[in-house]
Amino acid sequence: MTHPYYRWQMTEAGKPMSKVPFDPLPLADDEVLVRVAGCGVCHTDLGFFFDGVRTNKALPLTLGHEISGHVETAGPGASAWLGKAVIVVASIPCGDCDLCRRGKATICRRQIFLGSDVDGGFASHIKVPARSLCPVDEQALSRAGLTLPQVSVVADAVTSPFEAVHQSGLGGGDLAIVNGVGGVGGYCAQIARAFGATVVAIDVDQAKLDMIAGYGADLVINARTVDGREQKKLISAFAKERGLRPTEWFVFECSGTRAGQENAFGLMVHGSTLGIVGFTMDKAEVRLSNLMALHARALGNWGCPPEKYAMALDLVLSGKVNLKDFVETHPLDHINQIFHDIHDRCLTRRAILLP
Amino acid sequence: MTHPYYRWQMTEAGKPMSKVPFDPLPLADDEVLVRVAGCGVCHTDLGFFFDGVRTNKALPLTLGHEISGHVETAGPGASAWLGKAVIVVASIPCGDCDLCRRGKATICRRQIFLGSDVDGGFASHIKVPARSLCPVDEQALSRAGLTLPQVSVVADAVTSPFEAVHQSGLGGGDLAIVNGVGGVGGYCAQIARAFGATVVAIDVDQAKLDMIAGYGADLVINARTVDGREQKKLISAFAKERGLRPTEWFVFECSGTRAGQENAFGLMVHGSTLGIVGFTMDKAEVRLSNLMALHARALGNWGCPPEKYAMALDLVLSGKVNLKDFVETHPLDHINQIFHDIHDRCLTRRAILLP
Repeated sequence: MTHPYYRWQMTEAGKPMSKVPFDPLPLADDEVLVRVAGCGVCHTDLGFFFDGVRTNKALPLTLGHEISGHVETAGPGASAWLGKAVIVVASIPCGDCDLCRRGKATICRRQIFLGSDVDGGFASHIKVPARSLCPVDEQALSRAGLTLPQVSVVADAVTSPFEAVHQSGLGGGDLAIVNGVGGVGGYCAQIARAFGATVVAIDVDQAKLDMIAGYGADLVINARTVDGREQKKLISAFAKERGLRPTEWFVFECSGTRAGQENAFGLMVHGSTLGIVGFTMDKAEVRLSNLMALHARALGNWGCPPEKYAMALDLVLSGKVNLKDFVETHPLDHINQIFHDIHDRCLTRRAILLP
Repeated sequence: MTHPYYRWQMTEAGKPMSKVPFDPLPLADDEVLVRVAGCGVCHTDLGFFFDGVRTNKALPLTLGHEISGHVETAGPGASAWLGKAVIVVASIPCGDCDLCRRGKATICRRQIFLGSDVDGGFASHIKVPARSLCPVDEQALSRAGLTLPQVSVVADAVTSPFEAVHQSGLGGGDLAIVNGVGGVGGYCAQIARAFGATVVAIDVDQAKLDMIAGYGADLVINARTVDGREQKKLISAFAKERGLRPTEWFVFECSGTRAGQENAFGLMVHGSTLGIVGFTMDKAEVRLSNLMALHARALGNWGCPPEKYAMALDLVLSGKVNLKDFVETHPLDHINQIFHDIHDRCLTRRAILLP
């Protein structure tokens, strides 16, 4: 008989992870034990594993922060959650500090980032506080033709661009430009469309552009063959043709690369909003004064406040954001192989690992 | 007898300006003729004159966009303004387009920037539309111990940082860092203080720091001797001592230099707002992803919407923003000498030229 609780542990950057038993019990009053249905593999995980980016807690550690599952056991104060299907908030604010109480949960200094501050979701189970749970209506899930593992990626790949779009104030009649339409950017484009915007997608990978053209991008531009100045001309002509404004474009940078950030910065027009969604350690060289000359703004967001997870999930369950065609599932036991496959760009869709 | 209407004309970058007569009459229905009381010299003017920055209208042109004066003549539709003391909005929105009607006047594509799109205020008179006028209560002016020429600089040096502070949402209990406290930055520090913030001033010029320490800066740091990392430590300790937050600092970049922008960008903490107030053509190399990691934002503003001029002027008239000690007046006839003196950094205060 296998041990009922296990997780995959990273002991050293680049070294194969190994499956180890652990004992999550007992639970505190407000804690639940989630039996993991699926855990998405994010580029943050690859950064820890391949690039030696430091986890907040010292190794050994279990990675993974895009988690869905069922509540299998619950502390006395959280018993209402027993048996429920849930998505777990990727970075869990304390809920109690001055920042949390002022509605600034994403910058809570005591937040717990799963798979970095504590052991994450590449495991059979994970113990989390009940306040980190977003309920999933399993009937709605079934009606949408989705499985519980598939919606694990809502926890970051969908909620992070959701918050970027939401806090930008994007709405009907606006023009949104999404720079980089892999993983997160593909959802960003769909979310922008769901908010009523006309969407321009830019990428260096034609396959990704072809894909997103079928899911809400109204114009696609290959940055490999079209330079920034020419992109702006194309978008201006497109905006004119569609009767959209030549001002106030919303630009969402999702590539998380220096080149992508510099390209996105240059696409701003008067009154633009630039959303920085993708992450890179690299600096970018940009004319910051353009923010002044254009009366523009650049906004970042660290994930998404827990209370907005339900809104992001609704976009998925209502079919406004297609998720199914952008993910693929693999057995968690193949984690080492899958990490390498993603790193080697052998996968075109976001991988979700199933215990 | 001298010609009643004259202006100083720039014919070529760096070449002495010359006094030429002009005829502003007749006036259109909604136009007024302002007899200039004073016109402030802004770094934008120096950029045109010394650095060959292009004016929007081809030369010859009269520079100057910080104008106060009296309405001497008015078109039939603007007769209510006759005799009134006024400040003229530096960049005049059309008031009629979609952007203006949606409250986005600062990005109006038909706005007229005085001294660049049309002849400016280094003149005896200037003809402007009545909608560009901000009335000045001469009794309040006198009670404040100010003269009409002195408040000319409200038109840009005060209103631009005012808008930066206002749109940032800065309020009581906040920590504001002003990077660069010459001209505009000195007002920015005072405005931030007037909005209830505790103010940290940073500059490379100790004389400017000593000056602003007497006008609202609670801590001054010389960036010549204290590097960015050390500045942040000092400010953190200061915030702690004053019981202010370690998060959500407001940073206003007023130096308009690459080094200043990079320094200001690095001072952001979780939830920070960076206001880009100073202008430079130079690019800055910054880690844009910090906006994401810190859930922070960078805001720019092109001047100030006309309807907020009265609020900025109120801060001056109520004594919350000291203007008198930061300006000096000179005869307009000395314009060529004064331009060179400012360029050579011989003046420590903002120059206002009086016809």
